[in-house]
Amino acid sequence: MPTSLINRKTLDFLLFDWLKADQYLHHSAKQMHHRASLAALLDRAAALAAEKLGPCQRLSDEHEPVLEHGIVSMPPEIRNALHAMRDQGFFGLTQSTNDGGQGLPVLVERACFALFAAANPAVAAYPQISLACARTIQHWGTPAQISQYAKPMFAGRMFGTMCLAEQQAGSSLGDIETRAVPDGPNAYRLYGHKMWVAGGAHTMADNIVHLVLARVPDDHGNLIPGVRGLSLFLVPALIRHGNGETVTQNDIAVTGINRTMGYRGLVNCSLSFGEGVHRPGGKAGATGWLIGPLHRGLAPLLQLMNEARAGTGLFAASIASAGYQLSLRYAKERRQGRAWADKSATSPQIPIIQHEDVRRMLLRQKCYSEGALALSLYCARLSDEESAAPDADLRRHATLLRELLTPVAKCWSAQWGLQANHLAIQIFGGIGYTRQCPAEQLFRDSRLNAIQQGTHGVQALELLSKKLRLEDGTALELLGETMHKTLLKAGQHDVLAVHGKHLARAMHLLARVTRQLLSDDQQQRAMAQASPYMEAFGHIVVAWIWLDLALCCDQIAARTDAHFCAGKLAALDYFYLWELPVAELTLNQMMQADKSVIGFSDLSF
Amino acid sequence: MPTSLINRKTLDFLLFDWLKADQYLHHSAKQMHHRASLAALLDRAAALAAEKLGPCQRLSDEHEPVLEHGIVSMPPEIRNALHAMRDQGFFGLTQSTNDGGQGLPVLVERACFALFAAANPAVAAYPQISLACARTIQHWGTPAQISQYAKPMFAGRMFGTMCLAEQQAGSSLGDIETRAVPDGPNAYRLYGHKMWVAGGAHTMADNIVHLVLARVPDDHGNLIPGVRGLSLFLVPALIRHGNGETVTQNDIAVTGINRTMGYRGLVNCSLSFGEGVHRPGGKAGATGWLIGPLHRGLAPLLQLMNEARAGTGLFAASIASAGYQLSLRYAKERRQGRAWADKSATSPQIPIIQHEDVRRMLLRQKCYSEGALALSLYCARLSDEESAAPDADLRRHATLLRELLTPVAKCWSAQWGLQANHLAIQIFGGIGYTRQCPAEQLFRDSRLNAIQQGTHGVQALELLSKKLRLEDGTALELLGETMHKTLLKAGQHDVLAVHGKHLARAMHLLARVTRQLLSDDQQQRAMAQASPYMEAFGHIVVAWIWLDLALCCDQIAARTDAHFCAGKLAALDYFYLWELPVAELTLNQMMQADKSVIGFSDLSF
Repeated sequence: MPTSLINRKTLDFLLFDWLKADQYLHHSAKQMHHRASLAALLDRAAALAAEKLGPCQRLSDEHEPVLEHGIVSMPPEIRNALHAMRDQGFFGLTQSTNDGGQGLPVLVERACFALFAAANPAVAAYPQISLACARTIQHWGTPAQISQYAKPMFAGRMFGTMCLAEQQAGSSLGDIETRAVPDGPNAYRLYGHKMWVAGGAHTMADNIVHLVLARVPDDHGNLIPGVRGLSLFLVPALIRHGNGETVTQNDIAVTGINRTMGYRGLVNCSLSFGEGVHRPGGKAGATGWLIGPLHRGLAPLLQLMNEARAGTGLFAASIASAGYQLSLRYAKERRQGRAWADKSATSPQIPIIQHEDVRRMLLRQKCYSEGALALSLYCARLSDEESAAPDADLRRHATLLRELLTPVAKCWSAQWGLQANHLAIQIFGGIGYTRQCPAEQLFRDSRLNAIQQGTHGVQALELLSKKLRLEDGTALELLGETMHKTLLKAGQHDVLAVHGKHLARAMHLLARVTRQLLSDDQQQRAMAQASPYMEAFGHIVVAWIWLDLALCCDQIAARTDAHFCAGKLAALDYFYLWELPVAELTLNQMMQADKSVIGFSDLSF
Repeated sequence: MPTSLINRKTLDFLLFDWLKADQYLHHSAKQMHHRASLAALLDRAAALAAEKLGPCQRLSDEHEPVLEHGIVSMPPEIRNALHAMRDQGFFGLTQSTNDGGQGLPVLVERACFALFAAANPAVAAYPQISLACARTIQHWGTPAQISQYAKPMFAGRMFGTMCLAEQQAGSSLGDIETRAVPDGPNAYRLYGHKMWVAGGAHTMADNIVHLVLARVPDDHGNLIPGVRGLSLFLVPALIRHGNGETVTQNDIAVTGINRTMGYRGLVNCSLSFGEGVHRPGGKAGATGWLIGPLHRGLAPLLQLMNEARAGTGLFAASIASAGYQLSLRYAKERRQGRAWADKSATSPQIPIIQHEDVRRMLLRQKCYSEGALALSLYCARLSDEESAAPDADLRRHATLLRELLTPVAKCWSAQWGLQANHLAIQIFGGIGYTRQCPAEQLFRDSRLNAIQQGTHGVQALELLSKKLRLEDGTALELLGETMHKTLLKAGQHDVLAVHGKHLARAMHLLARVTRQLLSDDQQQRAMAQASPYMEAFGHIVVAWIWLDLALCCDQIAARTDAHFCAGKLAALDYFYLWELPVAELTLNQMMQADKSVIGFSDLSF
């Protein structure tokens, strides 16, 4: 089997030893799955990633989607890879066995998708977005909508998209102008233009199911402004009538495709709804149905966006893992230069992994990529606890923690995943800057993650203004309690007690700064410091994760490979010596009076 | 006139108020130039950048050079832009007026090239590299070589290239295998393969003059191994015989062109020398002539590489400036969202420059791009002092300081220039990730700079193992003395005294860590910490520069725009609050025992 672009030993360790995936199965699947069967599933995912997704990673970069006569076409290898994923049931992993799924936890689905995304993030993004849409329909839709749309999406026959942003409303969803006018029972006609629709048009599925954010006039015909007046609609590309024998095209047109830096296999469109393109002479307007409550589309939208954000974090971690594995292999093979102590000009050159500076870059990649992967999988585990924990309080706690950690996991993985891929290129050197080297593409792919599904800055503001205040700060308290459990265990450990003390100090500082930023008279300062705050928050969370991973390694040390555990400890040491102090510094800086960002005119830039 | 991608007010401030360019002219030019005439020259450079180089920036990215039948072709707009630069005399700015030049300081040349590189770094790189080659020939060549090659290069009729790296010897020049076999008086025949030759083949000049690093057998026919056995050769693509009426092609073939992430307008080739391609039946071997001393090619090579590195730093600063100017304009125009205090959903959206988080990103871009530009121009000023200072000691001091600062300026500008362009994309948001947005290309262009002309890691090792020890540490002492002059002035200033104290503390820490790393028993630690050391060094140097700029602003406050000075002070404050402490933290971390990078097996990654 081709080697995976995610270290399988690490993935198995995270899933089974750390997060106990085999103890968190649906009732329907308890008899079906155990650690060995889950590992076999990961083997199949890894093989599919290597055999189908990997080979079209470069291809999909070089042969971008083409728009001609309103039709988007792309290389058939992408379709083949997606159909192979579908045929092997990877769209329906989390569906109950009664519904033709495998009854698996979200955690296992995400682990499979980490393997897919490491091989080809653009292609793996189609099902990732589609599943977020399907779960939103499953949660908020009517039984008929679930059966007609969500089920074919879980079967991989239909693909979903998110149609949110508009030209005048990129990050500001409250300014969306697409209108939805009632047209019969629960049905609407939609009119408007949407941007940045990933997977918005292609011919690789039986139907494309757009989830469209729009605004419905109230009883007096007025549009309710702001986010409070938004509703979410299901708007399929093709509409079946009667028994499904008649199919008509919905009034949706592709108005352009974006030529992106990376992620080129994932077609990115502008769509117009209701311009009458597909129905000359007919009634204009794209037909759609409400998903979730009228004028309160924010709730289903947030579910959708949260899952998409979690996906972005996971993909960022996976792309970083791929760059790490590739540059690690190269560093072991490539010979260049000599050890510092060797003054001979004729002794053989050494593999570059033996150069201290290269080791430092590899270790940083390990800290970032494995830390991000662990954090994303931890969030997936919280999703499972939300739905399957035995106790209502535990389920509510899991929801709060997941809500709090979603922007952090998304942004931390995006930021440091890009840095990891920067270092991967650096290890390759000159060749790393050419398109001959896969790390070059991974770096470009990585750059999307700090933008898509809400930019870094928008996520930071959301963390500060919404997530920290969830249920009066309960989410933050819960995170503190969870981290304290790790501190207690670390306190009893010879080697790790010192890391625990360090983490406790950083947590204390974070709590102080958080109180300061949340006080009512500090709002502008909070706006100005939101990004560094979130970055420090993320570093402290990942420091906690590395400590918890080290404790877990310690528990299984007797039955595992000593090099594996030594690697995790080296990463822990690196993170606590070189990374965690930066977060503490940031927090200390935040407590100093800081007008530097706001205290001068625009003309001074 | 189209607006420049470098803030002209800042460029003029750096040149005239800070570095006193008008006081540093060649003797031959003293009567010709003054501040107004130099400013007019910059106007011409800015116009040329906007009218000729800018328009082929996107074009050269989309239409990469093509290799067919051994010939490299590229869009004619690139040729036109280069010929316009040539026709306006921009290749010969620093040549004496007797030689048809303008007798200008290197500083002024670099300022013009900053304008060119901000508009189109790939195209501006042809003359930048060519001039580095021409000056190397001018310094080390025979009168005949100077007249036959250097002069046409300064006239822009011939272009130069650097042929250094080989497949088995990327960063390790001591492992180069290209051979040069004596063939007549001072002439040689070269045999070997070179990689990463920027500008290695094209049809835009009368001739391409390759400077090739190779190894000559000693009197016993043996090759001397290591860097001590290297020699540098001038190997032109076309050779003129007799009176120049007969021209033959040299035995050089293009074996491939690299498809790079960015900088695509600058053709990047593999070349083979001496494979007999161009002379069927003739004597194989590429004809070349020694430049500089036999077996001691390191001296001319270092001159060449130092100038190329200075160019990389300048270009990195210029690309960062371009991203800053573009995202600044966008932030002023683009309306999105509302101020934090505005709770209305219907009030008009505000320009995003009014969002605190966007201001923070812009201010960071300002710190990085202007800091890097100032540092590069300061190094250019040192080059002028080297050749034109009235006193031999001053000239020697300038050489030492420039040697010490060259790797720092190159790497700091590459690292933070890329970060600045990352932030530029972030301000554009979704569109920033598309090739419709110029910041997207600038980001890709930027990524080259940490690799070309010696990677970040290689430069860091050079700083530690060579530059710090220059003349027993005199270079470092001189830098300290120069910075102390600024500290003295700052100490007498109401507002800036506190910055001075902060900088003094950081310098003290740097000195301690430097002593530790240079001690003989710390060599492996020094190797492992070279990169963070260089990064901290760079931050302290740039902190000094920002303080010196603020003092300079203060001196001219009465006759300049208050917003301009307030902007420089805001950047200073930002840098001292958020950036300088990171360098201090790094240095403090370096003093802790650190085995994290080296204390484990390769199998643990």
